[in-house]
Amino acid sequence: MPIRFLAILTVFFLSVPALAADASVKPPATPSAIVAQAPAGAWRSVAPDTLLIMTVEGGRRVVIQLAPDFAPAHVANIRALARAGWWDGESVYRVQDNYVAQWGDVTEKKALPAGIATDIKPDYVRPLAALKAAPVFLPYPDAYAPRTGFVDGWPVAMDGTSVWLPHCYGMVGVARNLSPDAGTGAELYAVIGQAPRQLDRNIALVGRVIEGMSLLASLPRGSGDLGFYAAGEKRLPIVSVRLASDLPEEGRPHYQVMDVGSQSFADYIRLRANRKDDFYDRPAGGVDLCNAPVPVRQAS
Amino acid sequence: MPIRFLAILTVFFLSVPALAADASVKPPATPSAIVAQAPAGAWRSVAPDTLLIMTVEGGRRVVIQLAPDFAPAHVANIRALARAGWWDGESVYRVQDNYVAQWGDVTEKKALPAGIATDIKPDYVRPLAALKAAPVFLPYPDAYAPRTGFVDGWPVAMDGTSVWLPHCYGMVGVARNLSPDAGTGAELYAVIGQAPRQLDRNIALVGRVIEGMSLLASLPRGSGDLGFYAAGEKRLPIVSVRLASDLPEEGRPHYQVMDVGSQSFADYIRLRANRKDDFYDRPAGGVDLCNAPVPVRQAS
Repeated sequence: MPIRFLAILTVFFLSVPALAADASVKPPATPSAIVAQAPAGAWRSVAPDTLLIMTVEGGRRVVIQLAPDFAPAHVANIRALARAGWWDGESVYRVQDNYVAQWGDVTEKKALPAGIATDIKPDYVRPLAALKAAPVFLPYPDAYAPRTGFVDGWPVAMDGTSVWLPHCYGMVGVARNLSPDAGTGAELYAVIGQAPRQLDRNIALVGRVIEGMSLLASLPRGSGDLGFYAAGEKRLPIVSVRLASDLPEEGRPHYQVMDVGSQSFADYIRLRANRKDDFYDRPAGGVDLCNAPVPVRQAS
Repeated sequence: MPIRFLAILTVFFLSVPALAADASVKPPATPSAIVAQAPAGAWRSVAPDTLLIMTVEGGRRVVIQLAPDFAPAHVANIRALARAGWWDGESVYRVQDNYVAQWGDVTEKKALPAGIATDIKPDYVRPLAALKAAPVFLPYPDAYAPRTGFVDGWPVAMDGTSVWLPHCYGMVGVARNLSPDAGTGAELYAVIGQAPRQLDRNIALVGRVIEGMSLLASLPRGSGDLGFYAAGEKRLPIVSVRLASDLPEEGRPHYQVMDVGSQSFADYIRLRANRKDDFYDRPAGGVDLCNAPVPVRQAS
């Protein structure tokens, strides 16, 4: 919150009347307090073959969680590209303010490794019936989809039959040429501003940045068309991109995503939608899908 | 759009059947084409006493349009602070990723000029009945307000009786201490990420950045609590903050905001909500208030 003093979280949470008689019992009043206090059982480990670790100049790291259930063909390509070291020595070559940071091969001429599918068809939704778990619905209206919610740790938009990933801050998608090209996954972007939801169902989303967003979002904007770096502007060099599952066990980072079916997540969403604490006087009574990021933490 | 080639805008716009017989007539197919082709009558000049020009290190410029109709007491303070040169030599001292960049006096101890109101009461909405013009409604649902739309060049959220500014990307607000403090306007922030609409009606919004957002949004994030720069991290020095009306006429920049009652704006919103061109296959059928920024341009 834009304040000058850190709020001390002592306000009694008004929606817990059973505890109201004992003023010494203070349930968490903020979303971050919910996350900090969530029990171990409220977290799910991220599989190492869905963790993409991009190391850039200076040894700084961007970690992406892949979403193979939503974009299987593109994720298969991305895994193969990482195993081939295809991105090593390439760059982040486009940063457009309030839109995307994009990386890969700026020349568009680098040969792809054998086995990379180059004919993936546009197919940006999944059948609702194919979901492994029931969605947790977000009970607030959305300008872009009949329903929104969360499935298996991911934000999702839905209609009566289909489900798709939304272009929220930090989501990673596949740059492509004009329709019906669907891209290969060699050129990727991350959303760095207000959610450009108009891209939903028009581009393949393949995952989300779970570490290092502040690095991508604070890169200098490119002065060329669409934010491409112009001549004389420095692209950010990529040192390497690897799957965690291809690293030695002792060198792998580990992450956990909050179980969207947990009580902790329900409490987190309730407070994201209804801030009422020392700083907030007027609860919003709702929250946008992209303003309720599923909590992620690094695990030891 | 995240593409590698610039789209050449030759797709016939499908919702203009009267022109369909003549394939050589191609109405604008993208929001940016609408803006580029908007006639002079679709633009309104920004009054120089609502233009705040912040010059930072290196001579780079951030320009803020003030909204006196929505926050009269705070804007009066801000004008007086600019006239007193109060921000000169201060800094941008807090940058929190996907949230805000904040500036002013990091010590919180610098004396305010005589005449600055320090007892402004929280009052973050205006009566709908007091609007100078009828709102243009955005016909899409919103998670935070019963209705949204545009008034006098500004995005607005509304209920049955009140209207307020929303925390969209680039909006400028007044940092404050814990409620019921409402701040003075000496410490300001700009939104640099997904719209934190939970702050609506909890903080005074006083305007929006109309030039220089890419500067504020690409600043290094602070590593301290809430994104404050920690010891050893460089704050961005502010050289000066002035009202355009206090500059000599020949040194003033001039800006225009699109008339939200114009046909150009209606066309712009229609296309923001319904992209269907060489790049987009599936129009969203809606657009979020904060994903439809009112076009602004520098005038000569």
